[in-house]
Amino acid sequence: MKVFTNVKDLGDLNAALKEAFEIKKNRFGYKQLGTNKTVMLVFFNSSLRTRLSSQKAAMNLGMNTIVLDVNQGAWRLETERGVVMDGDKSEHLLEAIPVMGCYCDVIGVRSFARFENKQDDYTEKILNQFIRYSNRPVFSMEGATTHPLQAFADLITIEEYKTKARPKVVLTWAPHPRALPQAVPNSFADFMNEADVEFVITHPEGYELAPQFVRGARIEYHQDKAFEGADFIYAKNWSPFRDDIYGKVVNRDMSWTVDSRKMALTNDAFFMHCLPVRRNMIVTDDVIESPKSIVIPEAANREISCQTILKRMLESLS
Amino acid sequence: MKVFTNVKDLGDLNAALKEAFEIKKNRFGYKQLGTNKTVMLVFFNSSLRTRLSSQKAAMNLGMNTIVLDVNQGAWRLETERGVVMDGDKSEHLLEAIPVMGCYCDVIGVRSFARFENKQDDYTEKILNQFIRYSNRPVFSMEGATTHPLQAFADLITIEEYKTKARPKVVLTWAPHPRALPQAVPNSFADFMNEADVEFVITHPEGYELAPQFVRGARIEYHQDKAFEGADFIYAKNWSPFRDDIYGKVVNRDMSWTVDSRKMALTNDAFFMHCLPVRRNMIVTDDVIESPKSIVIPEAANREISCQTILKRMLESLS
Amino acid sequence: MKVFTNVKDLGDLNAALKEAFEIKKNRFGYKQLGTNKTVMLVFFNSSLRTRLSSQKAAMNLGMNTIVLDVNQGAWRLETERGVVMDGDKSEHLLEAIPVMGCYCDVIGVRSFARFENKQDDYTEKILNQFIRYSNRPVFSMEGATTHPLQAFADLITIEEYKTKARPKVVLTWAPHPRALPQAVPNSFADFMNEADVEFVITHPEGYELAPQFVRGARIEYHQDKAFEGADFIYAKNWSPFRDDIYGKVVNRDMSWTVDSRKMALTNDAFFMHCLPVRRNMIVTDDVIESPKSIVIPEAANREISCQTILKRMLESLS
Repeated sequence: MKVFTNVKDLGDLNAALKEAFEIKKNRFGYKQLGTNKTVMLVFFNSSLRTRLSSQKAAMNLGMNTIVLDVNQGAWRLETERGVVMDGDKSEHLLEAIPVMGCYCDVIGVRSFARFENKQDDYTEKILNQFIRYSNRPVFSMEGATTHPLQAFADLITIEEYKTKARPKVVLTWAPHPRALPQAVPNSFADFMNEADVEFVITHPEGYELAPQFVRGARIEYHQDKAFEGADFIYAKNWSPFRDDIYGKVVNRDMSWTVDSRKMALTNDAFFMHCLPVRRNMIVTDDVIESPKSIVIPEAANREISCQTILKRMLESLS
Repeated sequence: MKVFTNVKDLGDLNAALKEAFEIKKNRFGYKQLGTNKTVMLVFFNSSLRTRLSSQKAAMNLGMNTIVLDVNQGAWRLETERGVVMDGDKSEHLLEAIPVMGCYCDVIGVRSFARFENKQDDYTEKILNQFIRYSNRPVFSMEGATTHPLQAFADLITIEEYKTKARPKVVLTWAPHPRALPQAVPNSFADFMNEADVEFVITHPEGYELAPQFVRGARIEYHQDKAFEGADFIYAKNWSPFRDDIYGKVVNRDMSWTVDSRKMALTNDAFFMHCLPVRRNMIVTDDVIESPKSIVIPEAANREISCQTILKRMLESLS
Repeated sequence: MKVFTNVKDLGDLNAALKEAFEIKKNRFGYKQLGTNKTVMLVFFNSSLRTRLSSQKAAMNLGMNTIVLDVNQGAWRLETERGVVMDGDKSEHLLEAIPVMGCYCDVIGVRSFARFENKQDDYTEKILNQFIRYSNRPVFSMEGATTHPLQAFADLITIEEYKTKARPKVVLTWAPHPRALPQAVPNSFADFMNEADVEFVITHPEGYELAPQFVRGARIEYHQDKAFEGADFIYAKNWSPFRDDIYGKVVNRDMSWTVDSRKMALTNDAFFMHCLPVRRNMIVTDDVIESPKSIVIPEAANREISCQTILKRMLESLS
């Protein structure tokens, strides 16, 4: 595996799940793979779960880890050719990225959408430059448009908790005070569309996600109706993808908050969220604290999804 | 060992000292204990000695280490239930703490007194939430009210340098330009009260420490008198515990600075301080640079006290 | 090896090169040397290549690594004796440095010139205090006046790419918007003067480097003339050493930028730069992107130069 940004990079999804569960049963069983190998984790944005789980996954595999926090203010990268670099950018990515590649075997990159230019965001400008110029396998630790380590962990979690062959999984928008990227819902849709689930997305009008991720998924604008018979409720805020309102907060409708009345409409569904979560905006205290809330085991599976990707990348090196 | 915040958590103090000295003689003799185990060091406040010595102690034991600097500005934790999280706090500790626990086997936490609310400080609000919700053994890397790794290192140092069975140990207040927490003197008293020493505390009136730590220790308001016949002088500034002046600087009396005239009153005492130390406020240059100053070996024992705690926590996992 | 700040610390330069090439062929062949040894990397200034390559080099040798970023604002060290420390400096280097030495076996220090006081810079005040007080082998990760890990990597690179026994190597000044230290050109001159090369330095008048580094090197004020017949062009900006203009930007003459016209004057020379580089100030896009640009392999050799130094320091411990 040379790149991990989307569900397709995993190939056969059932094989990937099987591999993940083998790793989960035997986390330290693959340490010879990582001996004398180094992963570099490059953060252009802050991180809690990804930072911790990626380090843990790499150490499980016996890898050395180097964490690099790129302070955007202090170390601004020039991205265009031909520029006379007499301003505040002291290094060009055309040098910085291959240099980072020199000192490691695998690179993880976190670089969020900036909401300045939809085209820049949706072409994954930063992440793709790492893929192109680092000369190393590169995995996304959340790019501008996808967060595949999260979605793979979500799928692992659904597989663990499901009680029927083909559960109904509902991705629901919920309100938030700030403009959030679409990376998590995009990747969740990307994965659910390939998984053996009945997948429904519910959100207010105007919050349609990008078609390349939604694909054939059913859209239901009536949240209550979407919840009926659901086995998993996956809550998440995102800002609009639509050109005219891209990356803006145009709706804070608190009637979309996931509460116990709505959960009662489901088939005793499990509650999921990628975290961090704004309580009583996205979800009420009682729902997230209920026995059906699986947000902590879901977070714990971030270690497993990352270790599966790292294992495959290590195998591709030898 | 599941928790380390106080002297009582060590059980038999002589057994703990014996174990510490065995570790000091053979730092790398317990590496099998830490293999495939990860310690997470969570800093809500800055740190030099604790940061370095805890990493070293964990690596001596063959553990993986993850250091997490929680920037209080960037990542503010909501602590109350029922709050609509529409402000600047993006995550609730009820999620953040169990998530951190997912990715490690042992957690160390540094979280200082904030001097905003004495009740919050003295109930160790942050540290106790880690103990309650992380599902992992938790040790204090300096809490709001205690710094047991420091006090245990102090005890180890006294044991190494003492020349009589029951030395006289004097904890003396000294002036400082800022309001400092009571964690270090609290823990020093906590440990000395259980150790085989003659323990005296000297400070200006108004600087009485919390009774639960002072216990039966002798208080002497006249510094010169306290110093007479002392074998160890332990200098430290702290701010008042008393309700009406809690956490304020009400005294900068430079006559309390430890100097050579006062040291001459002692039984050729060793000079100790937890560091960092303000020279010529707490202690004069000549005293801290004298052959009787043992501040550096005292700091070096921070590695040993931490390794002893980590070793016991690792043993409790298996 | 107890100290590494200058070429002389390496002893026989050919033996050092031979050792570096053996390491490059067998990076993981010396892991027993670093087992149970810890390197502490202390950064008073920011860093990309040095931070990453030093960690990688240490891990290649099986060492534990601790990275310490000293935030100059947060943790200011007092350096003078006799001062009453009642201001914003909370610790004296006379305590801080031996404490750091307690928790490691080898120390690397980065501390740039401050351009406040030439005497302070050129006596390497901070670095020398680490050498004097840490009680550990100390290597420079770029001091106020030298950057020997860079210059050793440069020499390794020249040795790899040269096509004649005694190549002509030209160090050329080039324009930059800010005042940069002299550490890189000082160390490059320091190494080239001892290497088997024809060494020429070219720069505008007023940019003469310190005599102790220039030594017998040929100075040529006419850049075109210097480039004639060159086998290696090493571009770098620096600010003046001369007392009256020390550390000031007095020249931004863009006619000194290295471009393809000037490279055509050479003997098909390789282009080198320590990075980060300002494109179209120091060098044009086409030159740095040409097949003769070896800036990336040069950066990659930073791992090798550092590993050679660490290996020698580890050998000196046993």
